[in-house]
Amino acid sequence: MDNIKAYIEENKERFLDELFGLLRIPSISSISEHKPDMVKAAEYWRDTLLKAGADKAEVMPTPGNPVVYGEKITDPKLPTVLVYAHYDVMPVDPIELWKSNPFEPEIRDGKIYCRGADDDKGQGFMHAKAFELMVKTNSLPCNVKFMIEGEEEIGSPNLGKWCQENKEMLKADIILVSDTSMIGKDVPSITTGLRGLAYVEVEVTGPNKDLHSGLFGGAVANPANILAKMIASLHDENNRVTIPGFYDDVLEVAPEERAEMARAPFDLEEYKKSLDIDDVHGEAGYTTMERTGIRPTLDVNGIWGGYIGEGAKTVLPSKAYAKISMRLVPNQDHEKIAQLFKKHFESIAPKSVKVNVTIHHGGQGYVAPTNTPAYQAASKAVEDVFGIKPVPFRSGGSIPIISTFEQVLGIKSILLGFGLESDAIHSPNENYPLEQFFRGIETIPRFYKYFSDSKK
Amino acid sequence: MDNIKAYIEENKERFLDELFGLLRIPSISSISEHKPDMVKAAEYWRDTLLKAGADKAEVMPTPGNPVVYGEKITDPKLPTVLVYAHYDVMPVDPIELWKSNPFEPEIRDGKIYCRGADDDKGQGFMHAKAFELMVKTNSLPCNVKFMIEGEEEIGSPNLGKWCQENKEMLKADIILVSDTSMIGKDVPSITTGLRGLAYVEVEVTGPNKDLHSGLFGGAVANPANILAKMIASLHDENNRVTIPGFYDDVLEVAPEERAEMARAPFDLEEYKKSLDIDDVHGEAGYTTMERTGIRPTLDVNGIWGGYIGEGAKTVLPSKAYAKISMRLVPNQDHEKIAQLFKKHFESIAPKSVKVNVTIHHGGQGYVAPTNTPAYQAASKAVEDVFGIKPVPFRSGGSIPIISTFEQVLGIKSILLGFGLESDAIHSPNENYPLEQFFRGIETIPRFYKYFSDSKK
Repeated sequence: MDNIKAYIEENKERFLDELFGLLRIPSISSISEHKPDMVKAAEYWRDTLLKAGADKAEVMPTPGNPVVYGEKITDPKLPTVLVYAHYDVMPVDPIELWKSNPFEPEIRDGKIYCRGADDDKGQGFMHAKAFELMVKTNSLPCNVKFMIEGEEEIGSPNLGKWCQENKEMLKADIILVSDTSMIGKDVPSITTGLRGLAYVEVEVTGPNKDLHSGLFGGAVANPANILAKMIASLHDENNRVTIPGFYDDVLEVAPEERAEMARAPFDLEEYKKSLDIDDVHGEAGYTTMERTGIRPTLDVNGIWGGYIGEGAKTVLPSKAYAKISMRLVPNQDHEKIAQLFKKHFESIAPKSVKVNVTIHHGGQGYVAPTNTPAYQAASKAVEDVFGIKPVPFRSGGSIPIISTFEQVLGIKSILLGFGLESDAIHSPNENYPLEQFFRGIETIPRFYKYFSDSKK
Repeated sequence: MDNIKAYIEENKERFLDELFGLLRIPSISSISEHKPDMVKAAEYWRDTLLKAGADKAEVMPTPGNPVVYGEKITDPKLPTVLVYAHYDVMPVDPIELWKSNPFEPEIRDGKIYCRGADDDKGQGFMHAKAFELMVKTNSLPCNVKFMIEGEEEIGSPNLGKWCQENKEMLKADIILVSDTSMIGKDVPSITTGLRGLAYVEVEVTGPNKDLHSGLFGGAVANPANILAKMIASLHDENNRVTIPGFYDDVLEVAPEERAEMARAPFDLEEYKKSLDIDDVHGEAGYTTMERTGIRPTLDVNGIWGGYIGEGAKTVLPSKAYAKISMRLVPNQDHEKIAQLFKKHFESIAPKSVKVNVTIHHGGQGYVAPTNTPAYQAASKAVEDVFGIKPVPFRSGGSIPIISTFEQVLGIKSILLGFGLESDAIHSPNENYPLEQFFRGIETIPRFYKYFSDSKK
């Protein structure tokens, strides 16, 4: 493993150039006009894998955006690592808050600034380059398969079926994913839990047209006021979600496990300072780390209605809308929760409005055991490069497809993420530190080695 | 007065052509890029008055949009009518709901469709044409002054001071305004009350940037959820406004007066049907007509925050906003109410967010007595043309400048409006029935006559 560092050092500039080519493609999966960019990004990944040394790589169609599949089978008797990543990215709104063009990568203060710099083009590309490194230095200790999708940010609506149809082709011993964060660059961690996700959109309709708020205000239900009231009622005074049945399937985490989690380094003052808030806010009886790690939540992701332009307009709007997501913990079923939401939201609507609830994508939560050879290999690889043994960590985020992999393919995943909280994923000025990018490329071959050794 | 009808009949087409010229100017006062259109509309009015027979007419500057002043003094000993109207209009959002171009007037089903067709270009223009009619047929029984402003829809921020500075020039016996509605074209009414208005904009800030709702959701205050909760708390279970002191200055209307008001024709089923709602909604203990006529209210006019584009984005927004207006009844002071709102809203904000309240324009409510010669003249003029004695009616709308006229100039106003509820003012597809336009032109000279006679 001595030549890992040397190879990275020699090829640094080229690695970045190649990553930048991918970053420049505005592959936003939630906006339909970007369809052609999705294909471009997929083809870019295919070409990258072929150049890196894959036996084959192809862009495979799905009813949505294509999946890139590539492989290098050195010996069928050796273990196989299946790498998962995604080439699609989040929208860039609010664009006025970006300091540089969201699709023109720029290095400032040792960080790559670009939509997708971390999530998940930067993190995914580390795997392409680590693979290239192992091939070119003749140190690939196992077989490798790549599955790079283009619909992660919209909930992977087609990947489950695609996996089902290609189950044989995807056979592997472990799935390796870099799409999560570490607690900090000096506090390396490996994600061992993910939250599930239920995402709904609600529309509240009052009168059949916008009305003059003077002539009608006070006599006709204002859907913006009603929506505010309905949303407010979704939490009680302890900030617990009030939807009947919402907590029914939540498994309480044992006191010992909570005590163990509490030992992870966390500085509340630093956290508040970094977000410029005077106080945190969440479910009574739980710490900040617990609120994101082991508790389900409900958040408004977007709300709109009426006049939102410059100045004042005295309109009583006809409609008001909200996008609402619920983060779920393992054992909560996202489909059941979405239905509970719908039923409850419809039931609390006053007769003076009409309510429509649309269910968007969702996904189940996930818990990874730490007593497996794969986790141990990942832990050792990270410790080699970062000099500190990583902390197992339950993240508040969701990667719905991870639980699908387990159900459909019967394969566990290792969530070997190198992102940092400051990377602003899904936000303006997304970035990824060069240091994390290169450390990731350094860590991955070590994982391959330790994991293959464990299978001997 | 016999030749009124004949003159209108002869000049119908020209009247409409001239009105359409004014309607085509997109004079939206709340959007700064329309500044040049404001001047165009003012000059159009000036030219209209000069052609109609004014001794003089000019565009007079203010720190905002100019005021058009015109006059015809036939004999200083005769009474003087001061006509007020406004040439500015509301924005056109949501533009996608318009069936025709908002600034290209179109006649469909006997109605003029255009932004401003009623409010207040159509209604204002009736006065220009009635004035022309009286001049050309030598039947002007008094002096006339015109004051046409361009900032009514943004709360007339400069007109009060302009009146103060031109008090002598504006001396008159009565102010005549057509900027209100009738209950129905078969139920003519004259507006005897207007509500006041306090308008605020609130900004709720949580974290200093948009965050990933998975990684932070449940632990950090979501400003959209908090805003919803704060807005919801502004009404109690009886739909009364909860701001301390809000009702302190409201004068309860005597039971006899409420009984009198209840005799005005109103069909609740028809009202619900026309708005496509299953139920009305408002303050407990009051009828629909009372809720808009004699009670103060609070409405969200616009709300926004987070991701409002296509599809799903799991963002925990940094900020959420709302535009909120309160309609006030006479004796409530809009400045006091805006301050009460601000103080209360700031006081209910949890420590986990920051709140900023901006106070927009406002205005006082107004009550017009019905036992005056001016009201009697208006009532008689309407009865002549509509065949039915008009009902005195307290409107829910606000024309803040009316109470300012009384304070600054010491002159009462007659609110001789010909709009209909179906005119969709401030909404997409604003329209004005041709019948009301021409009936208005027919009514106005009769008012001049009866009012002047009463002063003999």
